[in-house]
Amino acid sequence: MKRSLGTCYYPEHWPEEIWTQDAKRMADMGLSWVRIGEFSWAKLEPSPGQLQWDWLDRAIDVLGRHGLRVVLGTPTATPPRWMADRYPDMFAVDADGHPRGFGSRRHYCFSHRGYFAESQRITRLMAERYGANPHVAAWQTDNEYGCHDTTLSYSEAARVAFRDWLRDRFDGDISALNAAWGNVFWSMDYRDFSDIGLPNLTVTEPNPAHVLAFKRFSSDLVVAFNRAQVEIIKQFSDAPISHNYMGRITDFDHFKLGEDLEIATWDSYPLGFLEDRVGATPQEQRAYARQGDPDFQALHHDLYRAVGRGRWWVMEQQPGPVNWAPYNPAPLPGMVRLWSWEAFAHGAEAVCYFRWRQAPFAQEQMHAGLLRPDSEEAPAAAEARQVAEEIQTAPMVQPAQAPVALLFDYDADWAWSTQPHGAGLSYFGLVLDHYKALRRAGLSIDILPATAREFGGYDLILAPGLMHMPEDLKAALADCEGDVLYGPRTGARDAHFNIPTAPLPPALPGLDVIVSRVESLRPDMPVPLAVGGAATRYLEELEGDAEVLLCTAAGAPVVMRNGEQIYCGGWLDAEALDRLIAQVGAAAGLTMRRLPDGVRTRRTATEEFWFNHTAAPVETEVGLLPAAGVVRRALEAGE
Amino acid sequence: MKRSLGTCYYPEHWPEEIWTQDAKRMADMGLSWVRIGEFSWAKLEPSPGQLQWDWLDRAIDVLGRHGLRVVLGTPTATPPRWMADRYPDMFAVDADGHPRGFGSRRHYCFSHRGYFAESQRITRLMAERYGANPHVAAWQTDNEYGCHDTTLSYSEAARVAFRDWLRDRFDGDISALNAAWGNVFWSMDYRDFSDIGLPNLTVTEPNPAHVLAFKRFSSDLVVAFNRAQVEIIKQFSDAPISHNYMGRITDFDHFKLGEDLEIATWDSYPLGFLEDRVGATPQEQRAYARQGDPDFQALHHDLYRAVGRGRWWVMEQQPGPVNWAPYNPAPLPGMVRLWSWEAFAHGAEAVCYFRWRQAPFAQEQMHAGLLRPDSEEAPAAAEARQVAEEIQTAPMVQPAQAPVALLFDYDADWAWSTQPHGAGLSYFGLVLDHYKALRRAGLSIDILPATAREFGGYDLILAPGLMHMPEDLKAALADCEGDVLYGPRTGARDAHFNIPTAPLPPALPGLDVIVSRVESLRPDMPVPLAVGGAATRYLEELEGDAEVLLCTAAGAPVVMRNGEQIYCGGWLDAEALDRLIAQVGAAAGLTMRRLPDGVRTRRTATEEFWFNHTAAPVETEVGLLPAAGVVRRALEAGE
Amino acid sequence: MKRSLGTCYYPEHWPEEIWTQDAKRMADMGLSWVRIGEFSWAKLEPSPGQLQWDWLDRAIDVLGRHGLRVVLGTPTATPPRWMADRYPDMFAVDADGHPRGFGSRRHYCFSHRGYFAESQRITRLMAERYGANPHVAAWQTDNEYGCHDTTLSYSEAARVAFRDWLRDRFDGDISALNAAWGNVFWSMDYRDFSDIGLPNLTVTEPNPAHVLAFKRFSSDLVVAFNRAQVEIIKQFSDAPISHNYMGRITDFDHFKLGEDLEIATWDSYPLGFLEDRVGATPQEQRAYARQGDPDFQALHHDLYRAVGRGRWWVMEQQPGPVNWAPYNPAPLPGMVRLWSWEAFAHGAEAVCYFRWRQAPFAQEQMHAGLLRPDSEEAPAAAEARQVAEEIQTAPMVQPAQAPVALLFDYDADWAWSTQPHGAGLSYFGLVLDHYKALRRAGLSIDILPATAREFGGYDLILAPGLMHMPEDLKAALADCEGDVLYGPRTGARDAHFNIPTAPLPPALPGLDVIVSRVESLRPDMPVPLAVGGAATRYLEELEGDAEVLLCTAAGAPVVMRNGEQIYCGGWLDAEALDRLIAQVGAAAGLTMRRLPDGVRTRRTATEEFWFNHTAAPVETEVGLLPAAGVVRRALEAGE
Repeated sequence: MKRSLGTCYYPEHWPEEIWTQDAKRMADMGLSWVRIGEFSWAKLEPSPGQLQWDWLDRAIDVLGRHGLRVVLGTPTATPPRWMADRYPDMFAVDADGHPRGFGSRRHYCFSHRGYFAESQRITRLMAERYGANPHVAAWQTDNEYGCHDTTLSYSEAARVAFRDWLRDRFDGDISALNAAWGNVFWSMDYRDFSDIGLPNLTVTEPNPAHVLAFKRFSSDLVVAFNRAQVEIIKQFSDAPISHNYMGRITDFDHFKLGEDLEIATWDSYPLGFLEDRVGATPQEQRAYARQGDPDFQALHHDLYRAVGRGRWWVMEQQPGPVNWAPYNPAPLPGMVRLWSWEAFAHGAEAVCYFRWRQAPFAQEQMHAGLLRPDSEEAPAAAEARQVAEEIQTAPMVQPAQAPVALLFDYDADWAWSTQPHGAGLSYFGLVLDHYKALRRAGLSIDILPATAREFGGYDLILAPGLMHMPEDLKAALADCEGDVLYGPRTGARDAHFNIPTAPLPPALPGLDVIVSRVESLRPDMPVPLAVGGAATRYLEELEGDAEVLLCTAAGAPVVMRNGEQIYCGGWLDAEALDRLIAQVGAAAGLTMRRLPDGVRTRRTATEEFWFNHTAAPVETEVGLLPAAGVVRRALEAGE
Repeated sequence: MKRSLGTCYYPEHWPEEIWTQDAKRMADMGLSWVRIGEFSWAKLEPSPGQLQWDWLDRAIDVLGRHGLRVVLGTPTATPPRWMADRYPDMFAVDADGHPRGFGSRRHYCFSHRGYFAESQRITRLMAERYGANPHVAAWQTDNEYGCHDTTLSYSEAARVAFRDWLRDRFDGDISALNAAWGNVFWSMDYRDFSDIGLPNLTVTEPNPAHVLAFKRFSSDLVVAFNRAQVEIIKQFSDAPISHNYMGRITDFDHFKLGEDLEIATWDSYPLGFLEDRVGATPQEQRAYARQGDPDFQALHHDLYRAVGRGRWWVMEQQPGPVNWAPYNPAPLPGMVRLWSWEAFAHGAEAVCYFRWRQAPFAQEQMHAGLLRPDSEEAPAAAEARQVAEEIQTAPMVQPAQAPVALLFDYDADWAWSTQPHGAGLSYFGLVLDHYKALRRAGLSIDILPATAREFGGYDLILAPGLMHMPEDLKAALADCEGDVLYGPRTGARDAHFNIPTAPLPPALPGLDVIVSRVESLRPDMPVPLAVGGAATRYLEELEGDAEVLLCTAAGAPVVMRNGEQIYCGGWLDAEALDRLIAQVGAAAGLTMRRLPDGVRTRRTATEEFWFNHTAAPVETEVGLLPAAGVVRRALEAGE
Repeated sequence: MKRSLGTCYYPEHWPEEIWTQDAKRMADMGLSWVRIGEFSWAKLEPSPGQLQWDWLDRAIDVLGRHGLRVVLGTPTATPPRWMADRYPDMFAVDADGHPRGFGSRRHYCFSHRGYFAESQRITRLMAERYGANPHVAAWQTDNEYGCHDTTLSYSEAARVAFRDWLRDRFDGDISALNAAWGNVFWSMDYRDFSDIGLPNLTVTEPNPAHVLAFKRFSSDLVVAFNRAQVEIIKQFSDAPISHNYMGRITDFDHFKLGEDLEIATWDSYPLGFLEDRVGATPQEQRAYARQGDPDFQALHHDLYRAVGRGRWWVMEQQPGPVNWAPYNPAPLPGMVRLWSWEAFAHGAEAVCYFRWRQAPFAQEQMHAGLLRPDSEEAPAAAEARQVAEEIQTAPMVQPAQAPVALLFDYDADWAWSTQPHGAGLSYFGLVLDHYKALRRAGLSIDILPATAREFGGYDLILAPGLMHMPEDLKAALADCEGDVLYGPRTGARDAHFNIPTAPLPPALPGLDVIVSRVESLRPDMPVPLAVGGAATRYLEELEGDAEVLLCTAAGAPVVMRNGEQIYCGGWLDAEALDRLIAQVGAAAGLTMRRLPDGVRTRRTATEEFWFNHTAAPVETEVGLLPAAGVVRRALEAGE
């Protein structure tokens, strides 16, 4: 498949007389895809039951006639105002008990049956009308599930549904639930499923098993909401169905939701993320303010390649300053091109710029587009055009299996956030730190879900922080050919958030290590390792007869190994992680490099890419990389 | 008119037997004015309809007999407890939906019709009784409108009134509102005005047009509340009517409210403000902890001179430590005198010290007065007495038009706070930074409202950050004689908070500049200018053929000029602002100086004043200024 | 009485088949006491009225048969889920008005009459059954009153009860209340007690007299709740009754509650406290992260010795990492032993480790025990065993009166927190700073309640910050033999939170000092004293003819003295406090030392103890103290 570009367009925002010109300019710029419709419900159905499709018919027609392929979004992220009259209790409720009402977007509770039916109704109407439209080449369900903290809702509808979900899970046996959760601890036992409330507004922290169950339930609701739309669309259309996930939204299981979709897409805002979601230090913030973190987007690319089982896009690519971060700088010239090529290097089929034209009104009026509000080209337009030209002569999308796999598990993220044990500790942060160390060593990485059981072809597999590991996953990893690096906190909990005791964690077959004690540490109290670097913020006391690979300066084991099984009992800083990766990578037979700061590489089956994320030229083995520079190098056969 | 002093007194707080002595001591200290009554409703009407005027009759009589002129306050900021029984829904509601109940002050919602009627009733009763009293020489409405964040209320009453206000504004045409607000953006369209809610408790940010409209509506409510009292008082009294505004309260339009009043007064607490409202750095906090910011009070003086159309007072002057700031130090000896003279230098008719005697009970018991709680004199008393003596021989109040005008627009402040684009950016802060630069250059300044259309006599006019500029204001500024310095963000929005697109902002007649892109920056990422100094936190990309006055070190234009029209596209730091003022001031023919740190000057028609706000003596061109020193120099004719 | 050890055990958490083994291991480890039952209500009464005592019968029997003495806890801190069906309004309500519901612990409002009756019912049932049980050697009421901010509740039940409490206090005279509170200040007068609301959700700060009264009322509720249980237990049992107070919980009066109990116990978590409650600087946090603050536990030991009128225990002693602090490090080897001996040095009868075995489920699964979750010994077990052996040959519990007394007054803490005047100022912090200075001088200290009137035998008595001093306390201190150090803020308020005015504070007999003005200061603005050190954050201006002991570098008096009465008008930093204690201590005839950092001493009647709280060996006059080292030295007769 050829790489392609696209954009996000809102015909309903603009006078119909400029649609044609817009479509022509998109095509001229080299764009192939145009996503539309996802916020248009009030325009499609201004009053209940009064559907107005004509404008959308014409918009699709205009776009299609100019050779653009339409991605049509179901508009369920923005129910119209009249929906709130019909279902006054349709809103999600925050942890303080306040309803989150009408006036922006995502104002619905996934548990609400009435709104669930409405979301199916509008999806059916849309799919019926456009399922066979030749210009509609793909679908998108809703928009950015979970964005604005909308997965968890403490509504009455959620309470009722949660009880039912638990009753199913425990086969109606409340004593099984009490036992699984350890409710005896503080007289928290229930006599019936109808006793169970939501884990908010408790006096002190609620039972973590209760919290984790509520997160799993909430994730399942999102999956069910999405599945209902997919099933309807499939009745009327053969076009692939996608959803645009948002960066670092982890509160529902993207892998599980993704099983119902053909294509995973995600929305990539490198500069906004750096301010808001990366967890960068002030120094990193300054160094990369106009480029974004050098690894954060790449991690998501690899993640969504896994979620999409190979098929994935960037559905929304930042083209200039955004409106929503604490600070909103402009990208360094060249970064829009770099971000686009980086996505392709990780196997993207398409990159769509959000948005075509900056809207001069409403919430996102400070969000740049390819065009300025006065319809002149913004700086990103030229970079998009350059990429469009470059992909004409570039090879097909052809990913290659990476030599290293990194397991990513949404459930583990929920478990960590339920009981992080130390302020600021997060599973996502731990995974990102490991991912960064792999990247600094010049490695390409595949991300795998915790449901993976086949690990053939990987020299090294990482499973940091995977709090609960099913026994068959343990067995599969123990049996696979590659070396496996676990920990910290891998296997630390059973399925209901209890500490396994026979033996203590990690309880990995073939690995003679137990975690006998755990401590969290102030960030200003690193524990130095004997060889340099340090464990920071989280450290386990390890016992067992496995070989000690790394130990603290005081001699306590930190990394231990039995054959191909390696366990790391601390959150290592960058220096220590680099040493560990170098050591275990070498043992696993990996080819590694030490890349200059901010330089990253990535391989597909046919090419090796080099990216300079810094604001200055950098000398590399493929020559001088200018600031924001990209080098594509064709691989020799067998290289 | 002679300059005069006064104080704020609460006869109801003290045994009647000491009233006479208090009055005598006030007169002996040289005070002329005494404000009373503004929190006394429960004393005047302890039960509904049972009025008790006798004590107030006697208090006014005692004060008047000692030669004091009374400012009588309507007591509507503190409705009695029984009012809440009559109107249980009379309270304002905070953004989380919690009512803000009885137990302190300002516990009412401006939208509540029942309380509105009650406020008129008590005003009428008070005006009837004292309108002709010869000792009542001025009135005050309510107390510190807006203080404690009381302008915005998310009550049901506010919701209903907001809809009606919008219906009026849009002539009942809901589609006009939808269009003006860009509600199509996220399917936010309304079918009827009754659909419209308040912009709180939304999932993510509400439409900024919605927010700004709600702020404008809320300001109008304050104006109407005040006007109702003024109209009643005027039926019974010829004495001038005032209101005491609080420092850096910007959430209603003081100019608009002030149109109904004869005198503007404000409450000046320099040390409390420095901790709480100035936005000072820790270094500035330390340097000026006992003096207050050298410009913050002056800016308010100039502001309220404009609000009062020339007639203004300080109604409450800090005399010692206050109770309400995070830290409450004592003033440096001499500062109470300095603050008093500074007010006179800016044209104040009167300065009243708050309060006569420190109350040993209730909320403000740690708020100093002229007297201690044991009735001995606090340190401020001697300084007040000195000022009283000094004004005996001082010239009359005689302001002169300043050479520089600075536009101040409450609506702009609402617009900035609605969508600041970068953390910590505020219109007020931008105006203060410009005001400070003008003051460091030794200039006297007039503040003008955005409704001004006559600019004769000003050599330089500044209009920074004036987000929405009506076309006739643009024309008036383009046509005036003086040079005009706009930006950043001037003209950035139309009347409904949309970005103008034909052309892009600032769209100023005769100025060939457009803002093609906007970015906000982390405070630790200043963008250096070629000539020194930097743009910080906010920077616009400018295009156009105007002359470039200042550019970044990388060569991007920051300040551009066509003739008398100058546009600055960045938030400049102090060094850059000093350069800019020096440059444009010189071009405008202004006489400027570079004043030592913490020294400020101000001219009236007859005198030049020098103030040393530092804690050490400073050598100046008028000689050695001691710490907290004041020099008054009579001006030669024509100087 | 012999010193003894114990542990906290939850038989209901573990299979019955391991109870015997657990009991045997406890006894083998040298433990004598085992506390049980305090969270077991749902196990005892799984459905309303269906009591299940058999398991508890057997558990007590097993433990008793192994020679363990049982402390039986009433289970009222964790009412079962069905209680919420019976009393849906039984929950406390937070200051925002949100109920604090079921799902953790302490989910009840002390004002709720229905739950109050239930708490008595279960207490009676338990006391009836076990009052005569020979193994039940002590009782505990409830668990950690006040923990998780549960003393204050803004419920409807609290509102009604508060009014009644006030009506009693003011003999039904509402005008007396209005006068006492200064309600005239902002028209806050009430016409009837039924008008009075709770002091939350006001527009700005409520009347401090109102707040303080509500805190006193809330404290009384806790005392009454506890007393009801005590009175019931005493009908059936002669065993002593205790309650386990939590560290730095000050929102109810422990002295008053303690009058109803035979033994005071407290829960000591040195590492958790250091992170959370000590107010340590980052440097101190790092230096003592694995040891805890060197004085915080000792202060509590002395406090609870006073609360228990000599009889006190540590009921819960931290044995390893806990789960609830921001960071949860492991203790330095030796610290569990040090903490145990430190308690004994301060006169503890028993030290119980919390908990026997780490629970692998529910909220506290990351809280270490003497055993790991897999029943192996955790590191603390060996240290407990060592202490158990050491106490075999140690002297009996035999406290001696200390040479120095420090008054501690819960009411003063409420007053400070009601109106701290400066950010971060707290009474507890002030007392801790004084206590630390005394300890650095090598002194043993007795803590006394503000109800003490006998001060015989003390050379020096400290009464810092005791905001309200009854006249007879003033007289008793003025008359006692020792020297007395008051201030800052001592005597600053009358009984209803008004400033005394005739004369101004401190109004101490025989001391010619008044506080003429008060200021609070930014922490980065210390006011240097002439002799070194500084006053920080809070400073009073003193007038009077008393002798000046210390003054600022600018010459303002800070410490003044008349004979045995000494007043300090500032919050002194450590250097200045050390000087002051050295000076007044010498004058009082105290024997003092300058101890090395982190080394502390404490004397009983028979022994002198030395403790090294640092992580490195320290040379002292009793020899080299290893890290976490303890030296016990028998005292010569008369030493």
